[in-house]
This record gives sequence, C-alpha cells and structure tokens, in this order.
Amino acid sequence: MADIPDEPEAFEPFTVLERTPIYDSPWCTLRRDRVLVPSGAERQHHVISIGDAVVVVPECEDGSIVFIGQYRYPHGRTHWELPAGRLLPDETPDAGARRELREETGWEAREWLQLPGFFPLNGISDHWAHVRVARGCYPVGPQQLDDTERIRVRRFTRAEAEALLDSGRLTDGFSALALLLWFRRQPRQGG
Amino acid sequence: MADIPDEPEAFEPFTVLERTPIYDSPWCTLRRDRVLVPSGAERQHHVISIGDAVVVVPECEDGSIVFIGQYRYPHGRTHWELPAGRLLPDETPDAGARRELREETGWEAREWLQLPGFFPLNGISDHWAHVRVARGCYPVGPQQLDDTERIRVRRFTRAEAEALLDSGRLTDGFSALALLLWFRRQPRQGG
Repeated sequence: MADIPDEPEAFEPFTVLERTPIYDSPWCTLRRDRVLVPSGAERQHHVISIGDAVVVVPECEDGSIVFIGQYRYPHGRTHWELPAGRLLPDETPDAGARRELREETGWEAREWLQLPGFFPLNGISDHWAHVRVARGCYPVGPQQLDDTERIRVRRFTRAEAEALLDSGRLTDGFSALALLLWFRRQPRQGG
Repeated sequence: MADIPDEPEAFEPFTVLERTPIYDSPWCTLRRDRVLVPSGAERQHHVISIGDAVVVVPECEDGSIVFIGQYRYPHGRTHWELPAGRLLPDETPDAGARRELREETGWEAREWLQLPGFFPLNGISDHWAHVRVARGCYPVGPQQLDDTERIRVRRFTRAEAEALLDSGRLTDGFSALALLLWFRRQPRQGG
C-alpha cells in the first residue's frame, strides 16, 4: 500500500471585495463576487449554491443493483441512474439516503455503508454529494414520488451494471462515480 | 460479458409553458421554466447552463499520473485534481483537452484516448463533461495560467493515486470519476 499523498500546500484565499446576490430560491442560489486575485487584478467569480445531496448504491443480497429509469428535465432524456436527491433541512446524510431509496424505489436495506463524498462541480459551486451503499436491499412497498418525478425501477445483475458503465450510457455523473467507488471497494465475485 | 441493458422507455417530456431568463454571463446562465407535469399541475424548474468541459487523465510512460494542486474559490480549499476546464467557443473536446493539459501542467502527451463523458449535475443542469486520457505524458515548458488560476503540478505513482482516491481526499468529482474510469479500463501492472 502506498502512502496517501499529503494535501497540496494551501494557497491564500482570494480577497473578497463585494458579494452581489443575483438569485435566491429553495433550489439554487447564484451570486457574483468581486475578488482580488494574487496579481492584484480585480476579477469576477460566480458561485452557485445548492443544498447537499446524497446518492445511494442499492445492492441486493445476490450482488445485483437497483437502478431507476429517470426523466431529467434539463437535458430531456430518460436514462438509468441510482437513487439520489437533496437532503431536507436538518436531515442527516444517512436519513436522506434511506428516504431517497424508499421514495424513489420502494426498497429498504439491511445495512448501510459510507463511501467518499465529492464536489460535483467545484469550479463554480460548493455543492456536496454524500455517497452511501445500501446492502441487502429488499422491496417493501410502492414508490412515493412527487408529481415532478418520473421513475421506473429495475434490478440489474452486477455484470449488467458493469456493462452499462463500460458502454458509456451511465451518463449521470453521481451514479457513475458512486458505482465505481463501490465496485472498486467490492470486487466482483461471480456474475 | 453481460449484455448492455437497454435504455429505459422514454417518458414524455414536460410541456414548457414559459421560460424566464434570470441571469446570463459567459460563465453560466440561469433560467426558470414554468412546466406542466403529468399530473396536470404547473411546476417550476430551474436550469443552469454552463459550456461543455473536459477533464484529462495525464498518464506517464511509467503509469504515474500528473495531478494539480488547485485552489477552488467556491469552497476555498486547495486540493489535488486532474487538469480540467471549459471548452473555448468552437473548440473540439480533443483540442480543449490538449490545451488544458498544456496550460495547467506544462505537459503534452504522445497519445490520446476517449473515455465516457457525463452530466455532472443533471438534476438542475445540462452541463456535459468530456473525458480524455493523455498517455505517454512529458514536460515541455512552464504552465500558462491566467491570473485567477493557482496550480501546483505533481506526479504521483499509480499506487499513490489509488491511495488518494481510496482515502476520500480526491473530492473533485470530475477527477475522481475520470480516474476511476481509467483505472477500470487499465488495471494496474505493478506499483
């Protein structure tokens, strides 16, 4: 095992001269900051804020994975993803993961594991995604969708899930990253 | 090899009643749409648009990976990432990948490969990230940074890069996903 590389030496933060709120809503906030960069020049930096999210890798006893076929309004396509969503106010990542799995698939899990989280788009946003693995998943009831969600549930074998990843058709970054983190942690034992 | 699962049956798109531009800039665009959802209700949907980006996995002949220690203003931290950035107007993903590698690290590559791209945040944005692998990387000159970029260059062995991933400290989603896609395609041969 190699040593984990040290963090790079931290750069001094930019000096913030002014923060201009542009838009505020429960879904997203946009602001434009005027900052002083090390050269002494003034520059603009936009920052999009979105509440923390969680993505769930739902694994069944046989190693199969529960996917959802979901319509995504921004690009208009219906494609396979893993259950995910934003945390409710004051909700823990663990509680949010259980809730999203239950609502979007109708499934629950016997055991929960934590994987590393990530910044999905840290060039312009401090949005953070938590990652959880739901092991020993089993169906308990119907989905609980709100009227903007359009979701089909389907189980794929581990081999099918890997084929989906390798084909380039798992285009949701949250799902692809969470699945790859889990497959790296848990190498395949048979089909 | 398992068959690649078919795409899910496509849902009908929401009916767009009105699009309200909220903010426009070269960095990002925000709009709020009024849509008709299948229940017949009217809902709002925000859409953030950001030009396509590319992330590069720079690999040297010995399998080591070129990382950059980068300051990210939205969260204020300096951490390890792979070279990445938005494409210029009319720039191809291949050209953008070569440019970002050259500008951010001062390195070039003997061979380029394409990996699957992804939507980093498709709940609210149609932003797309291309992924390229730069193989046989070698240094050619100094970095070419603009005055808002703050970047240190460092090579890590494949084992160190894997340790960084597994430690949870590679928190940039673009970098973690690109690296995992490449490591999956190219299993490790020695340290």
